Amino acid sequence: MPELRKDPVVDRWVIIADNRGRRPQDFEIAPRRSAGRLCPFCEGNESETPGEVLCVREPHSSPNGPGWKIRVVPNKFPAVWEAECGEITDRDDGLHQAGPGQGIHEVIIESPRHVSSLTQLTGDEIILVLQTYRRRFQALESHPGLSSVMLFKNMGAEAGASLEHVHSQLIALPMIPTLQAAELQGAKARFDASGRCVFCRMLRSEGVSPRGVLVSDRFTAFCPFASRFGYETWILPNRHASHFSAITDDEIRDLADVLPKVLKAVETAVRPPAYNLVFHTAPLGGPPLEHYHWHIEVLPAFARAAGFEWGSGFHINPVYPEQAAQELRQTLARPSKFEDESIRQTEVTSERLPMP
Amino acid sequence: MPELRKDPVVDRWVIIADNRGRRPQDFEIAPRRSAGRLCPFCEGNESETPGEVLCVREPHSSPNGPGWKIRVVPNKFPAVWEAECGEITDRDDGLHQAGPGQGIHEVIIESPRHVSSLTQLTGDEIILVLQTYRRRFQALESHPGLSSVMLFKNMGAEAGASLEHVHSQLIALPMIPTLQAAELQGAKARFDASGRCVFCRMLRSEGVSPRGVLVSDRFTAFCPFASRFGYETWILPNRHASHFSAITDDEIRDLADVLPKVLKAVETAVRPPAYNLVFHTAPLGGPPLEHYHWHIEVLPAFARAAGFEWGSGFHINPVYPEQAAQELRQTLARPSKFEDESIRQTEVTSERLPMP
Repeated sequence: MPELRKDPVVDRWVIIADNRGRRPQDFEIAPRRSAGRLCPFCEGNESETPGEVLCVREPHSSPNGPGWKIRVVPNKFPAVWEAECGEITDRDDGLHQAGPGQGIHEVIIESPRHVSSLTQLTGDEIILVLQTYRRRFQALESHPGLSSVMLFKNMGAEAGASLEHVHSQLIALPMIPTLQAAELQGAKARFDASGRCVFCRMLRSEGVSPRGVLVSDRFTAFCPFASRFGYETWILPNRHASHFSAITDDEIRDLADVLPKVLKAVETAVRPPAYNLVFHTAPLGGPPLEHYHWHIEVLPAFARAAGFEWGSGFHINPVYPEQAAQELRQTLARPSKFEDESIRQTEVTSERLPMP
Repeated sequence: MPELRKDPVVDRWVIIADNRGRRPQDFEIAPRRSAGRLCPFCEGNESETPGEVLCVREPHSSPNGPGWKIRVVPNKFPAVWEAECGEITDRDDGLHQAGPGQGIHEVIIESPRHVSSLTQLTGDEIILVLQTYRRRFQALESHPGLSSVMLFKNMGAEAGASLEHVHSQLIALPMIPTLQAAELQGAKARFDASGRCVFCRMLRSEGVSPRGVLVSDRFTAFCPFASRFGYETWILPNRHASHFSAITDDEIRDLADVLPKVLKAVETAVRPPAYNLVFHTAPLGGPPLEHYHWHIEVLPAFARAAGFEWGSGFHINPVYPEQAAQELRQTLARPSKFEDESIRQTEVTSERLPMP
């Protein structure tokens, strides 16, 4: 029997209807194939991207040449343009408001090798990725005119990725986007009512609930009560902190273990593996907030939005979060099979495109 | 250069970034194929669906047997269940609110023939489809306990359709979903500020703007200023009316001409043709509203949501609405080529699955 659930923070309703997973399908999802073209993110192809904003490289290697471990470059096809960050809207005819699309849009190329998932990197490489995220967030905290930053990863064509090579993107804007504002407002209202951070309450109760996926020393992963998508998983730091930029070295080391474990479990459950990974953090340049808690949301491309969702704002999710969490926990409990799958996946992927 | 635009009614921002259409793609979208299974919506297969709620059939034909023109049946895999429509939430532990998923979920099977698009029906058949929508909406207006109804069509696997056979769905709920509530509230605020219906203002100005697609005696189609998706198109009745259930016979005849024209143009622009069509109407059982205006939104599966959209609530649309409208107008101005394409499409589609 379907169940209606409400997100504890924002005004978002979800209908969990697991019977919908059994409905007949006329369509088979054909694997989408790589077009076999030059990969602009592979080592040796540095001239295919704009110049580096930040790069960790071997001693004596040259900027924008080979010999790097991780590169941050402006997006060659940006959604927003670096500008003065003046007025957000400069036109209003009473019906239509518009303005220049101002901001920063960068790409973090997370490995010189042509692999497709964070789970294919070594622990040290993932630590470097997380340190690089932190360095960019810290730099943006003091950037004049910017209010928000969103770091996200689109993994798999079904989740909106256009390039296969492992990478994330960040978009920083001179305003706070609608959903982030709603989340901040909802969290504030919850804090005012109870005197406690709603995310702190959530992570304590959810980690040990049937929705719990993994609890480490410093992080808790669970499938949220009002999951929008099948196998949706959130990862929260156990320590209250509103800004991702304040993540500690110890937390980075712990997250470098937790994050690939969670992603591997999601990649095992959702075939073909496709998801968005989104970092939620407090506004740039503001003080630490006692009512907000930075976190990561993993949103699988499983039962994505159709007409009802786009019209109503409600989501229909065909997988109960409790069932999803149980499957993810079972995958996490199978280390050997798990490793084998990961290795096979690496090999298949690296054969698809010629290495530079 | 990207442009930021705000929807005139709801608090929804869109970044129009047409440069993003030129970015390289590792992935090719492989056509998804029909699995060649029994179609539960074809004439002769009536036993595959629950019993008819409403049906237009030949004289002397039997209920739930062959000989029909259009059938309305409960969804066999419903997202909500018909219930008493009591309390919306019956559980609240301070963090989690939940309740039974109550409501009505029906399927409107729009032809006994196995075609995939409304554009493949005759004018008389489309009139019957629209009359059937009206009959269901009118019946639901007086249904106890229901507050809202959403009629939608998912066309194509990329837009979330699970079955190819031409059909729409309606979901009626005991509450007003978030986005509908926001739309009603935004329209009310606009009305209070200007003394005029914001949709009436929009249709007068947009129909003759570079975003205009088609203006008939009774309807206006245009690509909205803050389109979320490439080739997004809205169709509004020229006569102010808040409830779709009040559509007149004359309006149905006109819409039966306008709607397939618009859909054909969208199907020509978006390949493979895939979109959601959503009817927006005022709450069930309420009085006519001077501030709200029913309308149809055609939302192509072109540049759908990825990590940034799910995290921010902002959309990035790679097609300027003015450019999209120009392309749609050009298609509308090419009647002969247009008809050929439509016929070819019919043939290909009808061969895919054996007719019952």
